[in-house]
Amino acid sequence: MQQQISVITLGIKDLCRSRNFYANGFGWVPVFENAEIIFYQMNGLVLGTWLEDALLTDMKRPAPTASSASSLAHNVPMMDDVEPLMARLIDHGGKLLRPADAPPYGGLRGYISDPDGHAWEIAWNPAWAIDDKGHVTFGL
Amino acid sequence: MQQQISVITLGIKDLCRSRNFYANGFGWVPVFENAEIIFYQMNGLVLGTWLEDALLTDMKRPAPTASSASSLAHNVPMMDDVEPLMARLIDHGGKLLRPADAPPYGGLRGYISDPDGHAWEIAWNPAWAIDDKGHVTFGL
Repeated sequence: MQQQISVITLGIKDLCRSRNFYANGFGWVPVFENAEIIFYQMNGLVLGTWLEDALLTDMKRPAPTASSASSLAHNVPMMDDVEPLMARLIDHGGKLLRPADAPPYGGLRGYISDPDGHAWEIAWNPAWAIDDKGHVTFGL
Repeated sequence: MQQQISVITLGIKDLCRSRNFYANGFGWVPVFENAEIIFYQMNGLVLGTWLEDALLTDMKRPAPTASSASSLAHNVPMMDDVEPLMARLIDHGGKLLRPADAPPYGGLRGYISDPDGHAWEIAWNPAWAIDDKGHVTFGL
């Protein structure tokens, strides 16, 4: 069995608001968009932002469940990249959850939520290699 | 800015129960584990399953928010792989959300939730290429 995640799909309420955060805040270029979904080609997987009602219907879940917490992370190449990116995301509709500080294992990280409440950790973690295609390798 | 997701961290209540789903159900081999977190090296990113209280403390979120819906997907190489994997995940603590059927855009997919309520789409999508390292490319 491949250790493989193909897609992360985030439910959103407003396509335009979400697009502003991802396309203008992160600066990511959509690979496909229509009136209900935007896809971004990522590092070996695809990110989708899809109107929440459509996603729930597709999953056959009647409502957003009180599911457990979760977080996505975007790691940056240098320590000095963390805070400017967090500021830029806040300028594009993100909300600050945790200002950047050093976690116990080293590096620097803070948390932002996107306009729909999905948490993003913005991190510099020198122990985790990132290659030129954005593929990330676990390290200690 | 790299179009890159470094980590997906799922909040979980019980490490052993979650490990059974991911390590025995999906058959994924942990790259690191301790008493509160398990990491899996995936296709260019890392999957973490972390005790929910620790994740919430790290994010500085007081409680799991009523955040929007979200879903992860694992795509399989052949149509006939979808239902056996769904059955295997159910045998390891997953719950059926949607039995496998054909979506409007083709292929075959169903949804399972993990023991903590995180949704996984198990899909065969012939339009999306998967290479031998598990890197997935968007296609129409």
